[in-house]
Amino acid sequence: MALSEFEIIRRYFSAVGAPRDDVELGVGDDAAVLTVPPGQRLVVTTDTLVAGVHFPAQMTAADIGYRALAVNLSDLAAMAAEPAWASLALTLPEADPAWLEDFARGFGELAGASGVRLVGGDTCRGPLTVSVTLQGLLAGGGLRRSGARPGDAIFVTGTPGDAARGLELVQAGRPARSEAERYLVERFTRPQARTREGLELADVASAAIDVSDGLAADLGRLAGASGLGARLRVEDLPLSAALQEARGETAPEAALHGGDDYELCFTVPTRECERIERLAAHWPCQCTRIGEMFTGAGVECRTRHGEPLAARPGFDHFRG
Amino acid sequence: MALSEFEIIRRYFSAVGAPRDDVELGVGDDAAVLTVPPGQRLVVTTDTLVAGVHFPAQMTAADIGYRALAVNLSDLAAMAAEPAWASLALTLPEADPAWLEDFARGFGELAGASGVRLVGGDTCRGPLTVSVTLQGLLAGGGLRRSGARPGDAIFVTGTPGDAARGLELVQAGRPARSEAERYLVERFTRPQARTREGLELADVASAAIDVSDGLAADLGRLAGASGLGARLRVEDLPLSAALQEARGETAPEAALHGGDDYELCFTVPTRECERIERLAAHWPCQCTRIGEMFTGAGVECRTRHGEPLAARPGFDHFRG
Repeated sequence: MALSEFEIIRRYFSAVGAPRDDVELGVGDDAAVLTVPPGQRLVVTTDTLVAGVHFPAQMTAADIGYRALAVNLSDLAAMAAEPAWASLALTLPEADPAWLEDFARGFGELAGASGVRLVGGDTCRGPLTVSVTLQGLLAGGGLRRSGARPGDAIFVTGTPGDAARGLELVQAGRPARSEAERYLVERFTRPQARTREGLELADVASAAIDVSDGLAADLGRLAGASGLGARLRVEDLPLSAALQEARGETAPEAALHGGDDYELCFTVPTRECERIERLAAHWPCQCTRIGEMFTGAGVECRTRHGEPLAARPGFDHFRG
Repeated sequence: MALSEFEIIRRYFSAVGAPRDDVELGVGDDAAVLTVPPGQRLVVTTDTLVAGVHFPAQMTAADIGYRALAVNLSDLAAMAAEPAWASLALTLPEADPAWLEDFARGFGELAGASGVRLVGGDTCRGPLTVSVTLQGLLAGGGLRRSGARPGDAIFVTGTPGDAARGLELVQAGRPARSEAERYLVERFTRPQARTREGLELADVASAAIDVSDGLAADLGRLAGASGLGARLRVEDLPLSAALQEARGETAPEAALHGGDDYELCFTVPTRECERIERLAAHWPCQCTRIGEMFTGAGVECRTRHGEPLAARPGFDHFRG
């Protein structure tokens, strides 16, 4: 017998993620009731994943669940907010118990690890679409895209470009042929939001953005919001060994323009760069200085010999 | 030239709804930053509309925008929360400027009238799906589904059953043939969330739910959450003249089982019933006492002669 909407919510979504004392009323009434600690502000982000657009049909339900939360965590990380509560709007072609269990497990695994509680949402029939609204708390000033100053150093976490290659491998639908391929696939299916890193950057960075549409495109947005230009040096781009193996000479372009990285790109006054190095020494990911902000506009990327690498626009759903 | 995702957001969604001082950062960064007043709690709800499932393709974009917010306002009304901030996840097959403008106008009209500001969201390509997460503020205790006591009177706002007939008329795709048909269509396309009524009920009602899947089904949920049964009298069901004209003798069944009403169903200790009458005298909608809660389970609906009207389950997306 088919599962009803209410059985789906009761069975799979009534106790997902970390228990939190500030959830006065969670899944099951008309709305959730939550307590924001005095002096803290609320940070809200929404990201939607559509099957066939944001992820290939071949992806497992657990990976889809994990990823739907991860991309939202990444937005909060870029604001230096502490993640708290998630709402899930899940549209499904059919109520398949195995799929639902797998999805809830993937989502719940990351929610639990991130201190996030699922507090509500909506399940209905339609083309597979997962929309998560994630709420976080902000004790201090947080981070914006718009705070960079001329001369500020530009940093990026991790090794951008990996996830775009991982997506190609998932789309190919064949088993990974090497450890490097497995790594790249996981970089797409299981993005690691830089939550802790974002929180530590709150008092040091001048601006931050999460890299989801490609490093060049998102840095371009940070630069635009700050009214500046950004200059990168090709040789400084952090390239994973797996990406270099997969892309060869075009690895730098892949790092600049590949999407789905969910890394942080941020700017720091040069006097604070040492502090970043000290902080990043304890991070589980690389953190690399890749360029500097300048009075101007756009994103420039040149080799050490001054040859330009053309900056292409980032992924756009309506032009893409 | 096709509009980009960023142009869509800038043109149509960067200044939607009522300006609010508590929006520190709205549309345009990685997330919104909002201030919850001290002593108030946050109330969060999510509702998704999928084209072809929740509304017919014939509906105008303005009506879709209006309705997507209205169904969420209705959830907050049932919690006695003051609406504040909305996030919109909009998935579209194509970026049609006329459609987007119309949608934003319908959404914005209701947002402005409800004191709601659009603070963020996500626009991407895919099958037409509108998911809204709406946040409200709660100063007092609010309302739940679970607070009803045996003997409490049951009330419903408005005239349930109208919207389901309105949907049939919209689906028929022909112009309305009478004032009554126009009224029924509008009951579907422009649901009036009972926000003010919910706020006024906060200190009087013992439990409340918004009626979206049919009066009998949603009252059944309120009864279940309160561990009680609910008894209705057929002759007491409020039936609009238009519904009676359209449904004839089956109008009571239509009022019990039709969906999409977005009315409030609530329970009140009998000693407070006079207070409800005084409050409701100022409401723009009817408010009708339709039955009482009893120690037991389920929803019973009988005629004055004791004949039962079978209670059917409410609309369910996975069984529907």
